[in-house]
Amino acid sequence: MGVELNQEASLKSKTPADLSHAHPVEVRHAARAGVLRGATTTAAKGYVQANLAILPRDYAHDFLLFCQRNPQPCPLIGVSDPGLPLLPNLGIDLDLRSDLPSYRVFRDGAFVEDRVDITDLWCEDLVAFALGCSLSFEEALGAAGIDQSYLENERIVPTYLTNIVCKPAGRFGGNMVVSMRQFSARDAIRAIQITTRFPSVHGAPVHLGDPRSIGIDNLAEPYSGTPPKLVRGQLPLFWACGVTPQIALASARPPIAITHTPAHMLVTDNLNSDYSLF
Amino acid sequence: MGVELNQEASLKSKTPADLSHAHPVEVRHAARAGVLRGATTTAAKGYVQANLAILPRDYAHDFLLFCQRNPQPCPLIGVSDPGLPLLPNLGIDLDLRSDLPSYRVFRDGAFVEDRVDITDLWCEDLVAFALGCSLSFEEALGAAGIDQSYLENERIVPTYLTNIVCKPAGRFGGNMVVSMRQFSARDAIRAIQITTRFPSVHGAPVHLGDPRSIGIDNLAEPYSGTPPKLVRGQLPLFWACGVTPQIALASARPPIAITHTPAHMLVTDNLNSDYSLF
Repeated sequence: MGVELNQEASLKSKTPADLSHAHPVEVRHAARAGVLRGATTTAAKGYVQANLAILPRDYAHDFLLFCQRNPQPCPLIGVSDPGLPLLPNLGIDLDLRSDLPSYRVFRDGAFVEDRVDITDLWCEDLVAFALGCSLSFEEALGAAGIDQSYLENERIVPTYLTNIVCKPAGRFGGNMVVSMRQFSARDAIRAIQITTRFPSVHGAPVHLGDPRSIGIDNLAEPYSGTPPKLVRGQLPLFWACGVTPQIALASARPPIAITHTPAHMLVTDNLNSDYSLF
Repeated sequence: MGVELNQEASLKSKTPADLSHAHPVEVRHAARAGVLRGATTTAAKGYVQANLAILPRDYAHDFLLFCQRNPQPCPLIGVSDPGLPLLPNLGIDLDLRSDLPSYRVFRDGAFVEDRVDITDLWCEDLVAFALGCSLSFEEALGAAGIDQSYLENERIVPTYLTNIVCKPAGRFGGNMVVSMRQFSARDAIRAIQITTRFPSVHGAPVHLGDPRSIGIDNLAEPYSGTPPKLVRGQLPLFWACGVTPQIALASARPPIAITHTPAHMLVTDNLNSDYSLF
């Protein structure tokens, strides 16, 4: 990959801040060696980070179909061959069993544990799915000078469960989860234009304005993230969110499912700008 | 569907020209009743027409994955549930076993026959895939005033087998087939902009200019279609083509596969403009 790792340095514990300007392969190696424990959110700036979902082969077709039918909440950017913990289109020196700093294990749809490595759980029967994430368009919004004060003070973008019913596929179904960001009218228009260019990372918003028209009663009570405070003149914009497939996974209750732990993502070798349609 | 069919009229033989301003359900009913025999190319103007591929369930995951990995030549717009000859997102009164004017049947990858109905071949084991087709963006090019004289005198857009290798998926693989359209520089730029808006129907071109750089030795010898004549100042533009998945199908050699007969497509209830990203 053209990246010379200082082996001694790479064995010291890494914080995500240490890795903000690192190459993605360095981040993956740090996770693989167990020296990166934190969230990847600020690591390897400019590179695509992906949500991960690993499922038994018997569930793979239905889940692939669920993603095909619901591309806004489930924007697939890579699917492994059965039994191979690799996604060559997202990175060459990449091992899905160890290269994320934390994994979440579910059995029969129920959370079991978070763990830093899944090598002993991996088997021939598993298929891995990587899904685009809104970090990619957040970068483009920032680069365009859009006011992102909703991210200040370690705030986490709030998500909400809506009344928008996803198109079911086999055992997978459920309602759409959305993430909310607030903007002035001017920035809202620009944010719609910019995110339209990124259909592989959720694309344009699914809604703007009145939260109740998509079944959100109270913006102050998010499903996850920091309760927002909208100031006068700000509009809420709602994007399809990668939590949606996690809900679909839980409802399908596969005997085993493995995802990333929230914010502990797969850091890929592809640039965010690679996913801009134009 | 809000379409009142004149039953007597619908039993008379229909030509595609009779149906150019028909509602899609009327075209499907005419095919179902066996009174529409010709190509659908000029029928139900404004509505999306889809390529069809029907495969045994055992091949469905690999084919779905092939489409996910090669979205430009294989832009999926609908996938049936196993055994159900329906695609509700493309039309309500729609029966995939009878609503195309002609089907092509392959066994072990080899062409067997064209037939007007596949009801007796349909079984619980089959899955149907509908793929977007360039007719949708041709309409947008025409509406924008782009010179489409390459379509005059019943010319058929030429296609070429390239040296661009598709990303394989299980048993499916092969090289990309492209379609070629020729434009002035000004129209070429506009055509790139317009087709970028339609990622579900092949999207932007994959190449422009020198045919040899994608392995095409001679534009005068297309894989299918009418040999083109470029006039001075015209550039060739190359789009990923729906013939690509047919080649992948043939190479995977499933025991049975059913497609549309070329130009005899599935006419859907969705507008071409529904597939414009912006």
